[in-house]
Amino acid sequence: MKAILKEKPIPGAVLREMDIPRPGPKEVLIRVKAGAICGSDVHIFDWDQWAQKVVPGLPHILGHEFAGEVVEAGKEVHHLKPGDHVAGETHIPCDNCYFCLTGQRHICMAMKVYGVHSQGIFSEYTTVPEPCAVKIPGEIPFVAAAMMEPCGVAVHGLSKGVISGKTLAIFGCGPIGLFGVQAAIAYGAAKVYAIDLSENRLKMAKSFGAYQTFAAGKDPVEKAILDETRGIGVDMVLEVSGSQMAYDQGLRILRKAGTFVIIGVAPKPIQLEIPTNIMYKEAKIFGITGREMYETWYQVSDLIQSGKVNLEKVVSHQLPPEKFEKGFKVAKEAQHGKVAFIFG
Amino acid sequence: MKAILKEKPIPGAVLREMDIPRPGPKEVLIRVKAGAICGSDVHIFDWDQWAQKVVPGLPHILGHEFAGEVVEAGKEVHHLKPGDHVAGETHIPCDNCYFCLTGQRHICMAMKVYGVHSQGIFSEYTTVPEPCAVKIPGEIPFVAAAMMEPCGVAVHGLSKGVISGKTLAIFGCGPIGLFGVQAAIAYGAAKVYAIDLSENRLKMAKSFGAYQTFAAGKDPVEKAILDETRGIGVDMVLEVSGSQMAYDQGLRILRKAGTFVIIGVAPKPIQLEIPTNIMYKEAKIFGITGREMYETWYQVSDLIQSGKVNLEKVVSHQLPPEKFEKGFKVAKEAQHGKVAFIFG
Amino acid sequence: MKAILKEKPIPGAVLREMDIPRPGPKEVLIRVKAGAICGSDVHIFDWDQWAQKVVPGLPHILGHEFAGEVVEAGKEVHHLKPGDHVAGETHIPCDNCYFCLTGQRHICMAMKVYGVHSQGIFSEYTTVPEPCAVKIPGEIPFVAAAMMEPCGVAVHGLSKGVISGKTLAIFGCGPIGLFGVQAAIAYGAAKVYAIDLSENRLKMAKSFGAYQTFAAGKDPVEKAILDETRGIGVDMVLEVSGSQMAYDQGLRILRKAGTFVIIGVAPKPIQLEIPTNIMYKEAKIFGITGREMYETWYQVSDLIQSGKVNLEKVVSHQLPPEKFEKGFKVAKEAQHGKVAFIFG
Amino acid sequence: MKAILKEKPIPGAVLREMDIPRPGPKEVLIRVKAGAICGSDVHIFDWDQWAQKVVPGLPHILGHEFAGEVVEAGKEVHHLKPGDHVAGETHIPCDNCYFCLTGQRHICMAMKVYGVHSQGIFSEYTTVPEPCAVKIPGEIPFVAAAMMEPCGVAVHGLSKGVISGKTLAIFGCGPIGLFGVQAAIAYGAAKVYAIDLSENRLKMAKSFGAYQTFAAGKDPVEKAILDETRGIGVDMVLEVSGSQMAYDQGLRILRKAGTFVIIGVAPKPIQLEIPTNIMYKEAKIFGITGREMYETWYQVSDLIQSGKVNLEKVVSHQLPPEKFEKGFKVAKEAQHGKVAFIFG
Repeated sequence: MKAILKEKPIPGAVLREMDIPRPGPKEVLIRVKAGAICGSDVHIFDWDQWAQKVVPGLPHILGHEFAGEVVEAGKEVHHLKPGDHVAGETHIPCDNCYFCLTGQRHICMAMKVYGVHSQGIFSEYTTVPEPCAVKIPGEIPFVAAAMMEPCGVAVHGLSKGVISGKTLAIFGCGPIGLFGVQAAIAYGAAKVYAIDLSENRLKMAKSFGAYQTFAAGKDPVEKAILDETRGIGVDMVLEVSGSQMAYDQGLRILRKAGTFVIIGVAPKPIQLEIPTNIMYKEAKIFGITGREMYETWYQVSDLIQSGKVNLEKVVSHQLPPEKFEKGFKVAKEAQHGKVAFIFG
Repeated sequence: MKAILKEKPIPGAVLREMDIPRPGPKEVLIRVKAGAICGSDVHIFDWDQWAQKVVPGLPHILGHEFAGEVVEAGKEVHHLKPGDHVAGETHIPCDNCYFCLTGQRHICMAMKVYGVHSQGIFSEYTTVPEPCAVKIPGEIPFVAAAMMEPCGVAVHGLSKGVISGKTLAIFGCGPIGLFGVQAAIAYGAAKVYAIDLSENRLKMAKSFGAYQTFAAGKDPVEKAILDETRGIGVDMVLEVSGSQMAYDQGLRILRKAGTFVIIGVAPKPIQLEIPTNIMYKEAKIFGITGREMYETWYQVSDLIQSGKVNLEKVVSHQLPPEKFEKGFKVAKEAQHGKVAFIFG
Repeated sequence: MKAILKEKPIPGAVLREMDIPRPGPKEVLIRVKAGAICGSDVHIFDWDQWAQKVVPGLPHILGHEFAGEVVEAGKEVHHLKPGDHVAGETHIPCDNCYFCLTGQRHICMAMKVYGVHSQGIFSEYTTVPEPCAVKIPGEIPFVAAAMMEPCGVAVHGLSKGVISGKTLAIFGCGPIGLFGVQAAIAYGAAKVYAIDLSENRLKMAKSFGAYQTFAAGKDPVEKAILDETRGIGVDMVLEVSGSQMAYDQGLRILRKAGTFVIIGVAPKPIQLEIPTNIMYKEAKIFGITGREMYETWYQVSDLIQSGKVNLEKVVSHQLPPEKFEKGFKVAKEAQHGKVAFIFG
Repeated sequence: MKAILKEKPIPGAVLREMDIPRPGPKEVLIRVKAGAICGSDVHIFDWDQWAQKVVPGLPHILGHEFAGEVVEAGKEVHHLKPGDHVAGETHIPCDNCYFCLTGQRHICMAMKVYGVHSQGIFSEYTTVPEPCAVKIPGEIPFVAAAMMEPCGVAVHGLSKGVISGKTLAIFGCGPIGLFGVQAAIAYGAAKVYAIDLSENRLKMAKSFGAYQTFAAGKDPVEKAILDETRGIGVDMVLEVSGSQMAYDQGLRILRKAGTFVIIGVAPKPIQLEIPTNIMYKEAKIFGITGREMYETWYQVSDLIQSGKVNLEKVVSHQLPPEKFEKGFKVAKEAQHGKVAFIFG
């Protein structure tokens, strides 16, 4: 089978022919149909310090967001069978810690992430533990299904507050931010403000129904949004950028008793002014990781089937695996939507 | 009447004889029985930069935590009458903004604070707007009643999560932290860990039922608490210290999906490591200010009457107003409990 | 001024010329522009046993849902002035009980209802206590503003659960049920099922976006909705009919851990099968009364201004006060939308 | 092995020698140490209509509440091993429905209950599916561990509202009600009122810290509790009796916006007066079943280890299996605490 591979401890990747893996007793073998590039894949592609620390060994197949079809099930697999369509839940919970045993598997104390701690899925076939292959309705196209994992991050973030009739500001309009715009509107948000560095991404946000968009670092975000909201501010901020400026602006435009959801991985420590921006306004701040297993998956599936969100519109590039170099180049530019590789 | 007064724009205060004020139509005149020193009073006493900025003019009577007896009611006062015992709610809401009109007066958009933006109450008589004089049961001693305002801050903080059967860590054992220890135990906490710089304050925390205490900056807080909680961490952190170290340690010992409540005024920006300490553990962070008007007041009154908390035990010094210099000296040392002035 | 009046203790009403009332110190005098008939008005019109018990004396002006313009303010009125547009909040809280003092005025322990315990507002002028005249944006037409009170009941009911992406069944498509259909869809509900006896009201529900409608007592409500929801049932039921059949069917089509909101006044005791319909499915049942003062008012105002709900479309009859007999006849038929009287 | 057995379709049971069962691949074989009689066991013992309908076949071993030691584990069992102490979770979830897949296994759509739909555990050995054998700390005595299941029902009920500082009324002081009294006090309740027909059970409630007890049907429950709570009523009612009178009284003494938790199986439909008892007071009613898997188990284990609850004090009779007739007689009298059989 073809696989996009990190072979040597240097930047870049190669496309190689490899053996099809065999599923363990609790695993399924999947024919991968579509995979998508996430930020962490870019880190591994670039072989930066973080990648060198977390990737257990080379060669390492890249990728973790995907969808495909089950072709074989291990003998302790009880709920999946060949022919089932599945999307990939990246997180591998231990199923034995306090959090796994109390319905919070997404914050398992011994979580593994495939494509990072294990081999990835940019290949024609892959094996994953049964809990990581989420059965999906057959009518969802594979390329949309491959986006359910990152879309789920946005939907999970939105679950931290009431959306119906509320105003939101979304800092960062990469794919997760764009899914957030779509889902917030589907969920009955009154108005969604979107902020990003890229004009192109803001155009996408606008096309998905964002009420107003702002060029980060240029447009007067704070003044405009406070004026628009009669000085009160927005009900919810989704922070998807990881930048200090977004924290500063986001907390200042947050209404009193508003909800600030942290979705973006901030590479550096963030400085927060506590009294005015958090205490006196009684801000509620929620850190978010992954997707609730599996409440979020049901939510994303429902949103897709309602027609109110359209994950494929967030995909700006559908490429064959042979064009992986172009794919990674586009992903790194941070000017476009999602890059998907079509395997099947 | 006697009053503890900031007369000149220099550190210190004086005790002066002044005229008894007259209540406006929506105000009550109160015979002050007991008042207590809060951190902001120390700032005004010291006449630091913050004080110079917020105090509207001199002479300025110090103090805002108090209890006393109504002696006269303005003509638009409908719910208080002479003889009523009252405790002081420091915050003066506008009663006309979105937050005041939706049951959230404690985060009024145009909040005034008396003793800061207006004359204070370290005097034999004072006038306050009716909503700031909270009627209390006659059997609560005045010195305890004067502590209901700061105790309410702790109780308000505890309302941000479940306490029953949970473990808490309280960083900072000044009076608010100590009230937090008492109230958390009264509310059925399983275990309360207390951290402070002062050995004396830790002794007080221990005497109120803290399960274990730690000398800040010396004892191995993180290791000890993680060991004690089988590596999971505590359910809730009350941050009452305002220090960077408390944020660092507090977020590291917080369990996944745990609740971190910010009560202490951090004088400088705080640096937070976002991915590990907030995102991957899905920390919930709540900023807190003041007391819910008046849910918190009912809660504090009930706690006092249940006998499960004892506010007077947090008062280490009861002084006549003549000894105000000693009082402020003690308050600044941050080694003791609360300092109260007895006026009547 | 003209007023629709219950003069004698018999069914019916008369239109009379009366003196314009004078506002008390905490009241405003309002030029009524539009009023609407509610179910309780019909009871008083018919002079049934309930009406005989609650109405304090005759003559009694009918009506309590209205909007108009302030023409004079009493001297203790601080937040309203002549020219302000207002809609009527029917409930008069005491502002001194535990609930009023903790942000829950809508469940005041000493609540009065105007138009029932006091004179009503089907007249060219009326006086109401300041808290019962809610200032509204000038751009909301008066006839829509007069509907904000009953629309608020539906919106308040929806606040008891998550609406975003959820399925609802609404039993009873009188005006409050119809407002519920509009608001649920505006708030991002996935699907709204509507059930009523009247074909005409079901047509209105459908025109507002209901996914499917059912003739009560004829169509196979349970089977159809369970089939539609893969046997799981709906996330929320709004019970607006007061009928035993709605409780039986509603609880059976409610999903496990679903939310059942009681909005309709059931005239007789309701029989509930506890183990299967409530316990084993862990149903959550919420009783609802009135509107949150004033959170619900902000929500309704926002919904109107968003254009996502259109209260005037629920008004099937706009009549001059002279046609009051026709108005009450239409209201009693329970086949139409709202009946509004236009006074100005 | 010895087993307490329903052999024939008539009232009563027999003690028989049987073969030790063999565990399936996902099951564990357990040496039963202690078992306890629950109300449903009495129904099966009496062979009433419900029992005839649900029990799949005879002979049928009685009992489902138990604790013991693992002696053998099936080959797909991954988290238990011989020597582990376990307590029995009676509910067998399917692990594949919407509720099982979203952290709500206790309301599984295809739930089986062992001892009802399958063989019970009043025998020296038993086999149960791995998820139904909850590993417990070795220091919990087996007889206490056998009570964790019913105690968990009470604790699960308490999770539906805030307990810290609140007042509760518990209708029904059988074992679950008594566990509720203990747990509510451990969780920081201000006051617990207890109501039952049996003087002896009320004495037990009082010894566990109930503030006041009432003989059901004799003492003036409503007047006394409303007087005690200044006319406001209690914050939470736990309904554990299944009786109409408890619903009537319980809803009338419930405060506005209070929480009413349904724990007792009402054998007949219950009549509810909707407007006054539910709507105008905005009652919140929660049906409860079983225990959250496994949040409730952690909570019960923590309560036991804290020493704040003492499950053994609720056990009034510890009997050898030979005395099963006496055990069932005592259980049916509804005058005592729990009856436990000691097997090992």
